[in-house]
Amino acid sequence: MNTFGHLFRLTDFGESHGAAIGGVVDGCPAGVTLDMDFIQAFVDRRRPGHSPLDTARREEDRVEILSGVLDGVTTGTPIGFIIRNTNQHSSDYDKLKDTFRPSHADYTYTQKYGLRDHRGGGRSSARETAVRVVGGAIAMLVLRQRFPSLTIQAEITEAGGERTQIDQAILQAKQNGETLGGIIRCQASGVPVGWGEPVFGKLQAELAYAMLSINAAKGFDYGSGFDGAAAKGSELNDAFIPDGNGDITTRTNHSGGIQGGISNGQDIYFRVVFKPIATLPIEQDTVNRQGEAVKLRMGGRHDNTVLRRALPVVEAMTAIVLADAMLQHRSARI
Amino acid sequence: MNTFGHLFRLTDFGESHGAAIGGVVDGCPAGVTLDMDFIQAFVDRRRPGHSPLDTARREEDRVEILSGVLDGVTTGTPIGFIIRNTNQHSSDYDKLKDTFRPSHADYTYTQKYGLRDHRGGGRSSARETAVRVVGGAIAMLVLRQRFPSLTIQAEITEAGGERTQIDQAILQAKQNGETLGGIIRCQASGVPVGWGEPVFGKLQAELAYAMLSINAAKGFDYGSGFDGAAAKGSELNDAFIPDGNGDITTRTNHSGGIQGGISNGQDIYFRVVFKPIATLPIEQDTVNRQGEAVKLRMGGRHDNTVLRRALPVVEAMTAIVLADAMLQHRSARI
Amino acid sequence: MNTFGHLFRLTDFGESHGAAIGGVVDGCPAGVTLDMDFIQAFVDRRRPGHSPLDTARREEDRVEILSGVLDGVTTGTPIGFIIRNTNQHSSDYDKLKDTFRPSHADYTYTQKYGLRDHRGGGRSSARETAVRVVGGAIAMLVLRQRFPSLTIQAEITEAGGERTQIDQAILQAKQNGETLGGIIRCQASGVPVGWGEPVFGKLQAELAYAMLSINAAKGFDYGSGFDGAAAKGSELNDAFIPDGNGDITTRTNHSGGIQGGISNGQDIYFRVVFKPIATLPIEQDTVNRQGEAVKLRMGGRHDNTVLRRALPVVEAMTAIVLADAMLQHRSARI
Amino acid sequence: MNTFGHLFRLTDFGESHGAAIGGVVDGCPAGVTLDMDFIQAFVDRRRPGHSPLDTARREEDRVEILSGVLDGVTTGTPIGFIIRNTNQHSSDYDKLKDTFRPSHADYTYTQKYGLRDHRGGGRSSARETAVRVVGGAIAMLVLRQRFPSLTIQAEITEAGGERTQIDQAILQAKQNGETLGGIIRCQASGVPVGWGEPVFGKLQAELAYAMLSINAAKGFDYGSGFDGAAAKGSELNDAFIPDGNGDITTRTNHSGGIQGGISNGQDIYFRVVFKPIATLPIEQDTVNRQGEAVKLRMGGRHDNTVLRRALPVVEAMTAIVLADAMLQHRSARI
Repeated sequence: MNTFGHLFRLTDFGESHGAAIGGVVDGCPAGVTLDMDFIQAFVDRRRPGHSPLDTARREEDRVEILSGVLDGVTTGTPIGFIIRNTNQHSSDYDKLKDTFRPSHADYTYTQKYGLRDHRGGGRSSARETAVRVVGGAIAMLVLRQRFPSLTIQAEITEAGGERTQIDQAILQAKQNGETLGGIIRCQASGVPVGWGEPVFGKLQAELAYAMLSINAAKGFDYGSGFDGAAAKGSELNDAFIPDGNGDITTRTNHSGGIQGGISNGQDIYFRVVFKPIATLPIEQDTVNRQGEAVKLRMGGRHDNTVLRRALPVVEAMTAIVLADAMLQHRSARI
Repeated sequence: MNTFGHLFRLTDFGESHGAAIGGVVDGCPAGVTLDMDFIQAFVDRRRPGHSPLDTARREEDRVEILSGVLDGVTTGTPIGFIIRNTNQHSSDYDKLKDTFRPSHADYTYTQKYGLRDHRGGGRSSARETAVRVVGGAIAMLVLRQRFPSLTIQAEITEAGGERTQIDQAILQAKQNGETLGGIIRCQASGVPVGWGEPVFGKLQAELAYAMLSINAAKGFDYGSGFDGAAAKGSELNDAFIPDGNGDITTRTNHSGGIQGGISNGQDIYFRVVFKPIATLPIEQDTVNRQGEAVKLRMGGRHDNTVLRRALPVVEAMTAIVLADAMLQHRSARI
Repeated sequence: MNTFGHLFRLTDFGESHGAAIGGVVDGCPAGVTLDMDFIQAFVDRRRPGHSPLDTARREEDRVEILSGVLDGVTTGTPIGFIIRNTNQHSSDYDKLKDTFRPSHADYTYTQKYGLRDHRGGGRSSARETAVRVVGGAIAMLVLRQRFPSLTIQAEITEAGGERTQIDQAILQAKQNGETLGGIIRCQASGVPVGWGEPVFGKLQAELAYAMLSINAAKGFDYGSGFDGAAAKGSELNDAFIPDGNGDITTRTNHSGGIQGGISNGQDIYFRVVFKPIATLPIEQDTVNRQGEAVKLRMGGRHDNTVLRRALPVVEAMTAIVLADAMLQHRSARI
Repeated sequence: MNTFGHLFRLTDFGESHGAAIGGVVDGCPAGVTLDMDFIQAFVDRRRPGHSPLDTARREEDRVEILSGVLDGVTTGTPIGFIIRNTNQHSSDYDKLKDTFRPSHADYTYTQKYGLRDHRGGGRSSARETAVRVVGGAIAMLVLRQRFPSLTIQAEITEAGGERTQIDQAILQAKQNGETLGGIIRCQASGVPVGWGEPVFGKLQAELAYAMLSINAAKGFDYGSGFDGAAAKGSELNDAFIPDGNGDITTRTNHSGGIQGGISNGQDIYFRVVFKPIATLPIEQDTVNRQGEAVKLRMGGRHDNTVLRRALPVVEAMTAIVLADAMLQHRSARI
């Protein structure tokens, strides 16, 4: 269950305080020019410290490609890659060895596996998303080579309930010792008609699966989404109209670019809601492994929101879903 | 892409106006008592005409189990089943052969496959969900045999924006010749700690995938969800506390029963938003296959909301996700 | 584990004495003309009684297609089908309820599942292969529509050790109250260069997996196979030569049409060895469910070799492997 | 298609002359003591230079585990690992850039992907099997922890047609400038009753798939196999008998420990035939990329048989199949 995708597949491994994180992209077609600067820049966007609003902790996330590429071009064989973990302070986490952080994965991992890697959250750390960003960057290169006008763009539309002063809200919360969540909107434009599968492989289902697999994501909607819950059918239907060039378009796009699970050529847009980071700089009630009530105060260098760092992750997972859908679509007709 | 699940798997086939719809449940453990009355009753709940608010159209949805059962007990081999299609009026749909219904799958199917079964929506018809309900009923029997106290319950919490007079809102819209959507909330109680997989197989991701694969679903959230977008971290954290019996519980349940992708023993709850039915009893603008603007007025016997019939479908897909997670969990430890 | 294939997939269900056997072909491209006579004729070839050498028992194996086809053409949606079981004499098998037939699956099924369908071998009966033949016939139609010169042909090359008088050997053994096995050779000609995947998805590995999944198959080899075990490298290498038309061919074909797991355009050929049928018309030693030694003599109407009926099954599984490889190959290049 | 297994899964990447080869073991249960010396020793067995009969080329195949382990015990999360490629002489292969080696994968890779990594065979090199050996060693540790008496043992039973003087035959051929193939027999003892799945997931089919995915393997049989082609049914049936301890055993074991696709508790044994290495120290006829006839003489440091180095690979793939079957079997009963 650490592989994502059907034909374009990312297998993802690694803990925050192990030797390295990494992955394997399998099913990447041959002949794709693998722009390493593009990939590294994509990864750099999710690094802490990238924005002045983020934590000061520095990670050197240098991507090392190990296979699948010859003279900068993919060969059709699997692309293995790693990112070394550096600058870890595992001893920071010693006191967490037997204590379950509230709203973290400590308790559930321990119950499931009988043990857990307590250092920095182990496998449940958001560090793992760097691997997705590498996979997504490769997917983006696949898509662009075939569909140069295809774009994927995520943006924060709401932070801590604030829609207009987002940077301000994050900074303010930081100063107040608080963490906050919010909403990211992502749009994919230039997706051809016909991607996605009916019934279980609906494009929106694949996107929802991708988004809800991101740490701290609590919900997903697309097109009219939750905001359309109160609307009448006559308000939401997207009338088809000739586009004047012999093709067909829609007058509105409440469908969010997907009808019957399949892209209709309009912009695909969706929202993902993220909860505030659960690591708080205050004393919290919790229990230890023996089931005793204890107090917990976490130190360490932590962000106060996942929103900024989640942007490239949302784009990356979208790119993987679309690259996968592009390949699956090749089997649609004899 | 017509198979759902990893170990407990449902393969689903059939169009609304073909000879039959049906499916195969593969991976169902041996030794489960298959209560046919329970299964048939589950299927009957999604039939049109089941509620006085639904359309008068009658379908005889008799489930015929073809394999995998001996003397009422599962044998571990695949359970094939069919439901015959009866009472079809395929000629009702002749005028749709070359015309794309707005906000339906007609256009995208045609573009993807080069042809489509236009009769009653073909594969994109909600009729397909009867197969899911059979699969879900079997999953429910699997779960109950091992965890008798495990329950799954869906309810309509909002219809057309109305939260208190839901039946009234549906009836009113029907009288006004309108269709409406709304929100279904589903809760699974009694799920043991430890189900779900980290990273890509998170329990919430599997549930989101399941729900967004249902026709007309536009969004999913769990726990604090979209409503928690404005909350602070200190408001959403679920403090662990001893439950007094030597086990651990949480003071609140903003996590929706899932932490780090894995069930924590609390109630799992989530919401699914459905759009209004796109088949309207009014004249609409659209285009035909030749790309010409035309007017379309659909007759036929149609519901004005999917909400009631979606209830057993939401429960069924939840049961399949949980039965699958139950089996996957068996590999967690040596 | 009742689904075969990656993109072109057959899900198979049914026991010999249940209501029906059947399957779902998922991933069949849209636009394939589904010649029902061709499919039925393919199925008829594996029926007992088809050859004068086979048992006199008659099965009516009428294939009923339930979905995925409109006006005789595939629509890209899953093709569900069933074959009703008729002419069963379940009571013939009553004495087998608690007795394990030697070299059959009775003991292992019982140990694995805690119970088994004892009637006619249940799921372990060769009757299940009729489903594969339907799936294979559809695969053959897919292949032929794109590659009209592609052919798949299986033949018995050895029966009971006899290579020249095969019909005679089968008849002779029948008269002697014996069962016999032998070797089937299958050749696929006209397969384009490039099908198959490196490493785990090698074309020969997929074929071996397909063949060893057939009841009574005990081995598989391709190209020089076991017969080449004693040869020197210089005797087996296939020199490449220009074919005079600007293409490349090989001087010999010890590679069996596959190099590095990928088809090279030459004939693909392989062998499958089948053991004699384990149901003997003599008294045998065995044990019952209580672990007591008992004597067993089976009556009933049984073939004395699987070889004839296995021919269409071998061809069918080959066709599924190749149709799957054809679709997978579409992802090889950007 | 670079992932092997269903629940216990190995994803494998790397070319012979890239930066590293490596893999990800996903689905390994938590709580397995990961004996690194055992793993390294397993890998060392397949290194060239390990036996005096092998080539003098030295590879430092140091396994570096990157994740999934804490204090020497598996945590249930994916185990990533790499082996650096060292001591490569890529320029040795410059002349192969545009020339297709006979009976190698050069031609088929080029036709499939439009390009290939020509250095040392790239992905088609047997170097990739070192990754399998790591995965297989981990699988072996999983199996042994649960079933301490389970053993897997491969041996060369025939080399170049010689069965009694195998070392001599390999040495003789080396001196004659020849390569040779032969047969490996593998036996798994102590496998419990009930592993393997009916129909498509038969244990013998999984083993055949595993074995035919190994470079140079040309065939597989189990139990009576090809040698039983001429036998009568009455000669091959394995009578069940009480074992005197209340359990059941068989008088003979022509079934090779598998009946109906499921292990029956007897020894599982099978054979794999390997062709001679295609890299010959003589001048051969071939063609270049332009389709012109050319002569090719390969230098370099090469083995003259794969047989010795294939032994740990055969054992490793067997272990992976069995560890996977062990986990799958946990879903057999409610």
